[in-house]
Amino acid sequence: MRRVYVLGAGITKYGKSPFSARELALEASRKAILSAQLSPSEIQAGFVANAFSLSEKQGHLGPIVMSGLGIPDAPASTIESACASGASAVREAWINIGAGIYDCMLVVGVEKVSQLDTITATTYFSFGSDYIFEGACGASFPGLYGALARAHMTKYGTTELQLANVAVKNHENALLNPNAHLHKKISVEDVLHSPVVASPLKLFDSCPFSDGAAAAVLCSEDYLRLKGRTLSEKILIRGSGRAGGTGALHQRKDLTTLGAAVLAGREAFNRAGLSYKDIDFAEVHDCFTIAELVAEEDLGFFPRGDAAKMTEQGVTKIGGDLPINPSGGLKAKGHPVGATGVGQVVEIFEQLNGIAGERQVKDSRIGLTHNVGATGGSCGVHIFELT
Amino acid sequence: MRRVYVLGAGITKYGKSPFSARELALEASRKAILSAQLSPSEIQAGFVANAFSLSEKQGHLGPIVMSGLGIPDAPASTIESACASGASAVREAWINIGAGIYDCMLVVGVEKVSQLDTITATTYFSFGSDYIFEGACGASFPGLYGALARAHMTKYGTTELQLANVAVKNHENALLNPNAHLHKKISVEDVLHSPVVASPLKLFDSCPFSDGAAAAVLCSEDYLRLKGRTLSEKILIRGSGRAGGTGALHQRKDLTTLGAAVLAGREAFNRAGLSYKDIDFAEVHDCFTIAELVAEEDLGFFPRGDAAKMTEQGVTKIGGDLPINPSGGLKAKGHPVGATGVGQVVEIFEQLNGIAGERQVKDSRIGLTHNVGATGGSCGVHIFELT
Repeated sequence: MRRVYVLGAGITKYGKSPFSARELALEASRKAILSAQLSPSEIQAGFVANAFSLSEKQGHLGPIVMSGLGIPDAPASTIESACASGASAVREAWINIGAGIYDCMLVVGVEKVSQLDTITATTYFSFGSDYIFEGACGASFPGLYGALARAHMTKYGTTELQLANVAVKNHENALLNPNAHLHKKISVEDVLHSPVVASPLKLFDSCPFSDGAAAAVLCSEDYLRLKGRTLSEKILIRGSGRAGGTGALHQRKDLTTLGAAVLAGREAFNRAGLSYKDIDFAEVHDCFTIAELVAEEDLGFFPRGDAAKMTEQGVTKIGGDLPINPSGGLKAKGHPVGATGVGQVVEIFEQLNGIAGERQVKDSRIGLTHNVGATGGSCGVHIFELT
Repeated sequence: MRRVYVLGAGITKYGKSPFSARELALEASRKAILSAQLSPSEIQAGFVANAFSLSEKQGHLGPIVMSGLGIPDAPASTIESACASGASAVREAWINIGAGIYDCMLVVGVEKVSQLDTITATTYFSFGSDYIFEGACGASFPGLYGALARAHMTKYGTTELQLANVAVKNHENALLNPNAHLHKKISVEDVLHSPVVASPLKLFDSCPFSDGAAAAVLCSEDYLRLKGRTLSEKILIRGSGRAGGTGALHQRKDLTTLGAAVLAGREAFNRAGLSYKDIDFAEVHDCFTIAELVAEEDLGFFPRGDAAKMTEQGVTKIGGDLPINPSGGLKAKGHPVGATGVGQVVEIFEQLNGIAGERQVKDSRIGLTHNVGATGGSCGVHIFELT
């Protein structure tokens, strides 16, 4: 495997958009290509991360995006792993370039769901679960993550107030992110008094349905040299991990951890030759507040049962010892399903390049992304280093 | 890139099935793993090729399949390139193993559409086109391929009777394939007098809507050695190519060729260090009769405008100089979208191993697969060699 770099990154505003998936994907792609200081014709191939474009009557997004960029000959497949589609697509591009198949690729994640009413959107999302055992029985994701939260509370004494702390922090971070979906300062009381969605999870414990797109241009070391770019101050993909878990929760032994995240994290750390201690900040998959705590424990950042306390103590704030979700996370930056994992990479790119504005994490050289599909049927973890 | 082999292959019967995509995928996967003489626990990761499983209310098929096989930790993403999803998934597994990420992978393609009525199925399929320019305007695939046929007839004098020859041949081959969807001997007159679907294409020029699944186990050379298998009499993936084309036909300069197939073929031949003359037989994407002729010309098997004549002369029959679609092709074996490209690999595996029964192509060592998405928005070509 050759070394692979992130050469450029671009993102649309997350939120309710009047634009189609096609248009959103093109906006993010053009921004990423511009950020890489390339022209579209230099892109050799790509991947599109998307889960629900059929709801907009459009599949086969690869040629739609590539044609829109004026490079129809460049092949692009769609990769879907429910909410982890983005991380999966980034990983496959990393492997394609690492293997020497291509030197310069585009990865773009996109989702457009605001044309669906909330019930239909929730139903569509539940197709990412093991539908015949979960979605069809009314167990959509708020209920399933509610079960994870209840298990964590039972085993470790985690409280609803501690969950609320995660939401408050991520809303604060999103206020500093112009592309975030939710720009709303909230208090712990706001969270605790918001409507119950699936006990113990409330509305403000939950991420919104978002439209949006995010893109990254990945390239080989040879390509950087060819283009006369220096290798210093470039973002290296230092490690990557990917793992699976059972489709349905009833097949799990323990609901306080996602096995896929543990395994994907382990693979990423092994490939990077690093440990959790080397990570300066991370973007993790906080589709619900409980998910951020579980992620921190699955990745080994904190001992089991300690993540809530660490959040309470401010360790995971921007300015804390280990900032988590400086972008605002899925919780407040938003969660356009196919885009989410690629959007995490955009945040890492901006942070490591020191262009994250008011939410800049100081003195960071190594960042991690953690992107989960459904309740951990899939997980992708990537580690990035400013070389 | 390391050398990658096809160690096992399995397929379900194609046709109208009472089973779900999940069940079909598991049947094909288990057969492939059995054919590889492995146990499921030896599969490290996989890809699922699928386009329309949301019509069955199930996305995120990877963990569903892997959980069903009893190996939930093994990651699997879904890859979609419309009707070329299968070839795309095979390619990504080839790259993953070639790069050294995994040593043993499962690729399974699956589609289940018979729960949809014909109009709904045609509409779903049209989501693989550039929907706002084509499907939404009523231009579904029969119409689009009808335009390709008309252009070929105008430029090269191809006749409706010559198109019918393709259907007759592929129906004859399918009679010898127990897993084929259509077991019906037809005559040229049957084709010419069948109902017009989109002039000049008639019902018997068109492939059926099929349910079905196909799977292959791919592995590295190191893995074969580790398992004590000899390298002789093993199926090597000698070359692979993948390319794109415009989503919509109105953006093309020439409707008598699919540029993506030309480019993908060129890449596959280059990587294999072979030319079209080295191919002993091929499985090509004959979703409509015209598509087989265009494929043969795009791959360079015959000069432009000559494919119809070669079919007439029996060159492409089993027993001819260059058998095309000995399986019966999409036309008669059937076309379960996500499965099709993987099913082509299953046919190559059986032919090169000499276990294709009555439809055996004699003395063949090199076979090619050609799998097209939509009207050539995507194309994947692979070349296999019995080493």
